[in-house]
Amino acid sequence: MKEIKISAPATVANVSCGFDVLGFCLEHVADEMIIREVPQKGIKITQIKGYNLPLEAHKNVAGVSALALIEDAKPDYGYEIEIIKHVMPGSGIGSSAASAIGSVYGINELMGRPYTANELIKFAIKGEAIASQCEHADNIAPALLGGFTLVKSVSPLTVCELPTPDDLFAVIVHPKIEIKTSESRAVLPKEVALNDAIKQWANLGSFVHALHTSDYDLIKSSLEDVIIEPHRSKLIPLFQMVKESAENNKALGCGISGSGPSIFTLCKGKFVAKDVADAIKDIFNTTDIDFEIHTSKINTKGPAVIDFKN
Amino acid sequence: MKEIKISAPATVANVSCGFDVLGFCLEHVADEMIIREVPQKGIKITQIKGYNLPLEAHKNVAGVSALALIEDAKPDYGYEIEIIKHVMPGSGIGSSAASAIGSVYGINELMGRPYTANELIKFAIKGEAIASQCEHADNIAPALLGGFTLVKSVSPLTVCELPTPDDLFAVIVHPKIEIKTSESRAVLPKEVALNDAIKQWANLGSFVHALHTSDYDLIKSSLEDVIIEPHRSKLIPLFQMVKESAENNKALGCGISGSGPSIFTLCKGKFVAKDVADAIKDIFNTTDIDFEIHTSKINTKGPAVIDFKN
Repeated sequence: MKEIKISAPATVANVSCGFDVLGFCLEHVADEMIIREVPQKGIKITQIKGYNLPLEAHKNVAGVSALALIEDAKPDYGYEIEIIKHVMPGSGIGSSAASAIGSVYGINELMGRPYTANELIKFAIKGEAIASQCEHADNIAPALLGGFTLVKSVSPLTVCELPTPDDLFAVIVHPKIEIKTSESRAVLPKEVALNDAIKQWANLGSFVHALHTSDYDLIKSSLEDVIIEPHRSKLIPLFQMVKESAENNKALGCGISGSGPSIFTLCKGKFVAKDVADAIKDIFNTTDIDFEIHTSKINTKGPAVIDFKN
Repeated sequence: MKEIKISAPATVANVSCGFDVLGFCLEHVADEMIIREVPQKGIKITQIKGYNLPLEAHKNVAGVSALALIEDAKPDYGYEIEIIKHVMPGSGIGSSAASAIGSVYGINELMGRPYTANELIKFAIKGEAIASQCEHADNIAPALLGGFTLVKSVSPLTVCELPTPDDLFAVIVHPKIEIKTSESRAVLPKEVALNDAIKQWANLGSFVHALHTSDYDLIKSSLEDVIIEPHRSKLIPLFQMVKESAENNKALGCGISGSGPSIFTLCKGKFVAKDVADAIKDIFNTTDIDFEIHTSKINTKGPAVIDFKN
């Protein structure tokens, strides 16, 4: 039977000015999945390496999105999925989205691509929902499409694929602490000052324009979050110090990746990104907080086929 | 001495999804100004035709912006300004912005263009401020630059010039009723639900993307205002009926122009615009409300020189 090995990338959602709608895709940080077509109908998760996650398909993010796909496609065969999880659950860089898109991307490839990207996103949203208890696509969309995406709405699903300036690099630091989802939700304001909301939509509008025009100065001045960061940053140790250090080292911007605890910075050029990464390492090395740091170009392709046995 | 005659266009601010930051420029609806270089230093407004506005330069919008310019330029001569006001004050289509940019645009032309557009906007903001009691540029920027603009911030002044899709037309209806500025401000919420704010910035972000990609379907779905329109539309008679009629006649969107009472629609193509304009006329013709209606391409050039005597 056919077998495919794919990579399913990590992503950064929110990106300071685009809470709940904006995201981008990372290179070099990705899960791997091996998916086999088998005679037995249904979805079976045979193995998960890396992290302890449920093997039952209907309780597993990759399983649920795959089940949504085969419920629609009704194939005469089934799929076995082996997951090699590199993106740590709860790290804030789209671990569940990587799982959710990986299985449907891989199965769609095995089937000869009957589904469009938008259709795959809809299946993946079902998987993501069991991890985050709500249907959203701000990690799903960039994980599947690559580059920067803006999810205008989930229902109806409307996703804008934004252009990626050539020389943009991301540095991600993941302080290995746990922030409970309930806690990171509890600090969100239900109401915001109209004046702050105006600032935020001015920033998001200009950020979208800046991506279209490769205007790095405008990217820099648009990467500001007056709504969420003041609340959530308090849950992340060293956040202010990392942010100041990134700014001092000429990063374009620095903010919370998703709901944290990971922190992202965007930089123009790999040399700036290296300086920023080094400075952040220095900060964490003076503490006893375990951490990981990634430097990455923006991944404009999304998931990739590593191996295909036909 | 030198003399110039210029046109200073009307504009639509807010544009549903971009409260306080977005605007576009109209054709065929504009003030005219004749500006003369004279030996006597200072700014003198010699005549205002059309509407009853203050002749004292320091109390007049066009005068104050011109004074800001000559305070900076310190020329050895002065300027006489004659204003032919076509854009009715209080109509909601940037009457004060037209005055504010007309004088500085004309004087800059007479001087041989020593100032950049951004510098002229700063002078014009000073004039606009005496009409609206605060420094803002959401009408000023499109009036001076033409097309669609997004004012990211006033201080520092950061204006994005957005692209204008070729086939875009506006229909503006001005119901000749007075809405007091105090009243249109009083209905604004000071706080908004985070979920509504997210919808609004998703819409503005996708609207900016839609202009860049000439995606008319996306323009249509982005032209939605969940924050301001529900409050301010109550002050405008027939608003809901006009909006429904515009939608039924295939307008891309319909909303309040500035703080009203004018209502704008955006349409793809002049035939749709004509149908929409006719339908709106029919609505107002069944009432005793006096009204004016304009159909216009988007003016991508801003102000224009009508005549120049050197």
